[in-house]
Amino acid sequence: MSGTMTALVKDKRAAGATLKNVPIPQCGAREVLVKVKASSICGTDRHIYEWDAWAERTVVTPNVFGHEFAGVVEAVGEQVSSVKPGDLVSGEGHIACGLCKACRTGHAHVCPHTRSFGITAPGCFAEYALLREENVIRNSADLPLEVACLQDPFGNAVQTVLAGDIAGKSVAVIGAGAIGLMAVAAAKACGAGTIIAVDVNDYKLRLAAGMGADHVLNSSLAGDAAADRIRDWTGGEGAEVVLEMSGHPAGIRVGLEAAAQAARVSLLGIPTQPVPIDVARHIIFKGLRIDGITGRRLFGTWYQMKGLLDNGRVDLRPLVTHRFPLDRYEEAFELVRSGACGKVVFIH
Amino acid sequence: MSGTMTALVKDKRAAGATLKNVPIPQCGAREVLVKVKASSICGTDRHIYEWDAWAERTVVTPNVFGHEFAGVVEAVGEQVSSVKPGDLVSGEGHIACGLCKACRTGHAHVCPHTRSFGITAPGCFAEYALLREENVIRNSADLPLEVACLQDPFGNAVQTVLAGDIAGKSVAVIGAGAIGLMAVAAAKACGAGTIIAVDVNDYKLRLAAGMGADHVLNSSLAGDAAADRIRDWTGGEGAEVVLEMSGHPAGIRVGLEAAAQAARVSLLGIPTQPVPIDVARHIIFKGLRIDGITGRRLFGTWYQMKGLLDNGRVDLRPLVTHRFPLDRYEEAFELVRSGACGKVVFIH
Amino acid sequence: MSGTMTALVKDKRAAGATLKNVPIPQCGAREVLVKVKASSICGTDRHIYEWDAWAERTVVTPNVFGHEFAGVVEAVGEQVSSVKPGDLVSGEGHIACGLCKACRTGHAHVCPHTRSFGITAPGCFAEYALLREENVIRNSADLPLEVACLQDPFGNAVQTVLAGDIAGKSVAVIGAGAIGLMAVAAAKACGAGTIIAVDVNDYKLRLAAGMGADHVLNSSLAGDAAADRIRDWTGGEGAEVVLEMSGHPAGIRVGLEAAAQAARVSLLGIPTQPVPIDVARHIIFKGLRIDGITGRRLFGTWYQMKGLLDNGRVDLRPLVTHRFPLDRYEEAFELVRSGACGKVVFIH
Amino acid sequence: MSGTMTALVKDKRAAGATLKNVPIPQCGAREVLVKVKASSICGTDRHIYEWDAWAERTVVTPNVFGHEFAGVVEAVGEQVSSVKPGDLVSGEGHIACGLCKACRTGHAHVCPHTRSFGITAPGCFAEYALLREENVIRNSADLPLEVACLQDPFGNAVQTVLAGDIAGKSVAVIGAGAIGLMAVAAAKACGAGTIIAVDVNDYKLRLAAGMGADHVLNSSLAGDAAADRIRDWTGGEGAEVVLEMSGHPAGIRVGLEAAAQAARVSLLGIPTQPVPIDVARHIIFKGLRIDGITGRRLFGTWYQMKGLLDNGRVDLRPLVTHRFPLDRYEEAFELVRSGACGKVVFIH
Repeated sequence: MSGTMTALVKDKRAAGATLKNVPIPQCGAREVLVKVKASSICGTDRHIYEWDAWAERTVVTPNVFGHEFAGVVEAVGEQVSSVKPGDLVSGEGHIACGLCKACRTGHAHVCPHTRSFGITAPGCFAEYALLREENVIRNSADLPLEVACLQDPFGNAVQTVLAGDIAGKSVAVIGAGAIGLMAVAAAKACGAGTIIAVDVNDYKLRLAAGMGADHVLNSSLAGDAAADRIRDWTGGEGAEVVLEMSGHPAGIRVGLEAAAQAARVSLLGIPTQPVPIDVARHIIFKGLRIDGITGRRLFGTWYQMKGLLDNGRVDLRPLVTHRFPLDRYEEAFELVRSGACGKVVFIH
Repeated sequence: MSGTMTALVKDKRAAGATLKNVPIPQCGAREVLVKVKASSICGTDRHIYEWDAWAERTVVTPNVFGHEFAGVVEAVGEQVSSVKPGDLVSGEGHIACGLCKACRTGHAHVCPHTRSFGITAPGCFAEYALLREENVIRNSADLPLEVACLQDPFGNAVQTVLAGDIAGKSVAVIGAGAIGLMAVAAAKACGAGTIIAVDVNDYKLRLAAGMGADHVLNSSLAGDAAADRIRDWTGGEGAEVVLEMSGHPAGIRVGLEAAAQAARVSLLGIPTQPVPIDVARHIIFKGLRIDGITGRRLFGTWYQMKGLLDNGRVDLRPLVTHRFPLDRYEEAFELVRSGACGKVVFIH
Repeated sequence: MSGTMTALVKDKRAAGATLKNVPIPQCGAREVLVKVKASSICGTDRHIYEWDAWAERTVVTPNVFGHEFAGVVEAVGEQVSSVKPGDLVSGEGHIACGLCKACRTGHAHVCPHTRSFGITAPGCFAEYALLREENVIRNSADLPLEVACLQDPFGNAVQTVLAGDIAGKSVAVIGAGAIGLMAVAAAKACGAGTIIAVDVNDYKLRLAAGMGADHVLNSSLAGDAAADRIRDWTGGEGAEVVLEMSGHPAGIRVGLEAAAQAARVSLLGIPTQPVPIDVARHIIFKGLRIDGITGRRLFGTWYQMKGLLDNGRVDLRPLVTHRFPLDRYEEAFELVRSGACGKVVFIH
Repeated sequence: MSGTMTALVKDKRAAGATLKNVPIPQCGAREVLVKVKASSICGTDRHIYEWDAWAERTVVTPNVFGHEFAGVVEAVGEQVSSVKPGDLVSGEGHIACGLCKACRTGHAHVCPHTRSFGITAPGCFAEYALLREENVIRNSADLPLEVACLQDPFGNAVQTVLAGDIAGKSVAVIGAGAIGLMAVAAAKACGAGTIIAVDVNDYKLRLAAGMGADHVLNSSLAGDAAADRIRDWTGGEGAEVVLEMSGHPAGIRVGLEAAAQAARVSLLGIPTQPVPIDVARHIIFKGLRIDGITGRRLFGTWYQMKGLLDNGRVDLRPLVTHRFPLDRYEEAFELVRSGACGKVVFIH
């Protein structure tokens, strides 16, 4: 392959992005070139597009951005053995070093040397994307492309849900954004008992009910009584599993207050400031276990997803509410900004 | 309470049983008297009824037998605080000592001092049954009585399914008797990937498909190729979880052969003879983990069941194929002997 | 047994305590009367003696206080089967209800209905103490009485150390009070890699070195560089296990900052106020696991202690620096107040 | 580097080996050339040298054999970033594929595509050895070379000991060969309670006592009473952890019989034939967990070893009983054959 391709490039350190022609990436000996068929917009992409403080601090420019995708292998390097042209694939976006202690002991998802596909390395809002062989994931032929491209955020949800026992346990999902909604679906598919979704937005709570929540709670209305409501719905015990997806101090507080004795609290939502935590009451005397969740397990989470998706245990199609061609990216990002959508997918 | 009640009594150390009047048990200070509403016949009850070598070795006579039940609290002892008359309940049948090392470290299900409700202590094929307060389980009002009485065997299935990770993993259930069928349902409810049921009986395999198996396999037809079929259905990897419910050496062999690298093999079915195992090939080089499963976790398994049943994650109703009043016990046991049934329930 | 005994009684809701004659407790059917041979002073006892806000909120009066002890069984109730007069014993101080969900699922250490021996129920600073059979722990004849009485706080340390993997892992123990020192000893005995003890008190740090710390760090001198020093001593990775025993916000902050990627942070020290925590940087991006630790596992921790103490893997004798008869209690509490001591033991 | 080196080559598919000049391996882009300083003889090397059925089936010829070593990096490929010339190193001998499901989910030690350094790929009985960068392990400067070369078998022992909880638990090590002896030492260093070593050879049992066993048992003398003796030494409970290192059916039987309720049985020793196992009595009714152990966890076990060795928790020096230069290999293998030795080390 040589020549150029159309790509959405973050070329200025300011709001916006430019659709332009760039060279098709050259495939190294252990690399895989993928023709992108579908990609989706992550909250991170919105930060990059709108250019906030996090983006200024983190993002490389110029860069093809976007990191959620599905496609078809176009070409492989001469040492690649595990995939071949024509295979349907997605990709893990964490480009971990593979040689540090975290990588060598099953914690590559928190490798301190990670580069990120679409953030600090070229991504997938383009005709073609380049991956290391070890980052390529084969998809089933039965998996719709617009679902296959959602595996990156679904993996966040699955890692959070499965960070500990879930079957038969009551679950409170705090924050019903895309990953929170996927967590509701994954929890239900994995046999959770009573599932409660909490958010401040009734539209999202309706989506949560559609994804399988047994109870939904608008915490802006419930205020300090939110934890009491959760306790009522769990036979007075509190939630045995709390999945914190909001990153808001108030969400974290509700989650810790509503957690049962000896509960698990898995934290995925990222607060922007230090959060005051009543360590004695909420962690020690309850005997809680708290997990910080980043990314996806490399690659255990992908195999868990495969089992859930290929056998129809989870259906993510209701989450895809809008589809665009890549050249209507301004419209797509404007829609994401408005909040009146589920996942927005580019059909390439 | 005083007076007499009708009960099915194993009164001779030979085949058969007698329906007769016996005194209603007196409720001690920490005990609970339950009016039985539904009970079901376990394979163990058939061993007792037909009187085999195991029964001769194990069973106390005369004794009211039967150990799977649901009912209503009739009376409680003066020190009982956790249940009250009118509560809907079932009971854990393992009467563990509570003071030995196994009991004190979370392994009461293998307490060496256990007495067994309906086997070495009076059971539930009667108008009333007596339990220690700590063995009583409260049921939800929504749970049908004929399902509530199935929790003892369902707990065997749930403990087996949840003895390790299950979500997203391929599962082979070897043996599709009542507990195997419940295991299929529990595995599906808990997010298992591809679920394969194996038995020698096509009737049971049809039930297994109804309970959620993705593939069924008649191993008497498949012979040595059974493991290959399982491997084909799991992308060439083998089953990541094997649940052995048959107790047959051939079933164990198929399970070990079909197990993937680093699989979990949970053994519930009880062989009557030593089984030759290729430890090197099937355990060591695969890096397998094998668990021996007995009873239910006291009482973690009961809470897992509650989560699954109360929230409709598992529906056991299709397994109840026949209902009898207690005085038609001969007909009921004859039906069980014939094999042409799912669970057979006495409606008291 | 009848008659009276000498006991140290917290009889006024103010500072101090009174040595007086009280009735010997009567042994119920499932209870055990113990002749106390050695008892030790916990930080909690100092709170009770000096009477602070926590004591005012929590402690029952009048009450025999003290909860760390070893003694000999004097008499047992008629239903007691697991111990007999003459047995050497200690006792678990958490009187859990045994019937709630926490108790029934292996989390009795956080039973919300717990009564506490020596705090909300009569304790052991007396000639005799009364326990439920299930709370009695048998001691080996080889275990010195003044060590046997330390098992309550040693159990706190052991539960903290063994709340996750420890063998071969670098450990930072933050706070070198009695439990912190015991944690250093337990971590070393359990094969921890580099062990670092952190405190603001050089005297305690010398004790920590004596108990097996490879490095000691005065965090009041190191200030913000404390985490850097810990990172230096752990090959730049940070500590794989952080055991927080201080309860100080600064200690918690140092621990979280010094924690390696994917580390375990076990929190035992009890802060008196909410603590600001940088959830994003310190929990999520590191993929940390945090455990709140209360009491001892009932009774897994006691069996772990037995294995460590009976086989000489841990030697707690160096921690016992002072011994008094019970009637010199004022002197003993004054010594504890001064801080110039390890564990202070009453020889009864 | 170019030219030739002296190496011990398995050049015929029959007993023996030849010391000869062979080309120094050429270092690829991601490879590391190591100057070997010490190597040791494994039981596997004896199989290769003496050429048995396993060797005929498994070993590639001609090949430089030997896989346990320590050395100094001589040169690195141009893409190597994690080590540099002069670094002290050893190497993991399993050359796993890195791309299969086992490798991608933390089970690379049972990768079905593994090549083995010194068995199916060139090894270390030579002046130089070649490794992939990902297989190189950096050693501490304080670690004696003759200990550093033992990490391959020590890793077998450490993986077996740490396959589950060990601290405070009673342990029976069945089989006191080199790995069994290392397991005794590792178990003691990791806080095991009572440690019992079982073998048929009194010489090895004396070594086991020296490595820290609390009790030793000659099972050829004890016969069927061996399990009873183990039960006596464990307070009547049986061993909470059984580490099977012998591979003999009789050893496996003693281990299963002596295992406590809910014990862990980790199997490393490789039987040559199927073993009859009383699954009902020994696995199911006890609620056992059995693990098959192969190799070392890649690379968690190596970090655990590093923590244990670098901090002096385990001292392996007493196990090295004989040292030879490589050209006295016939004498060395004859000594290994005689059994009158611990580990035999080549000093290069």
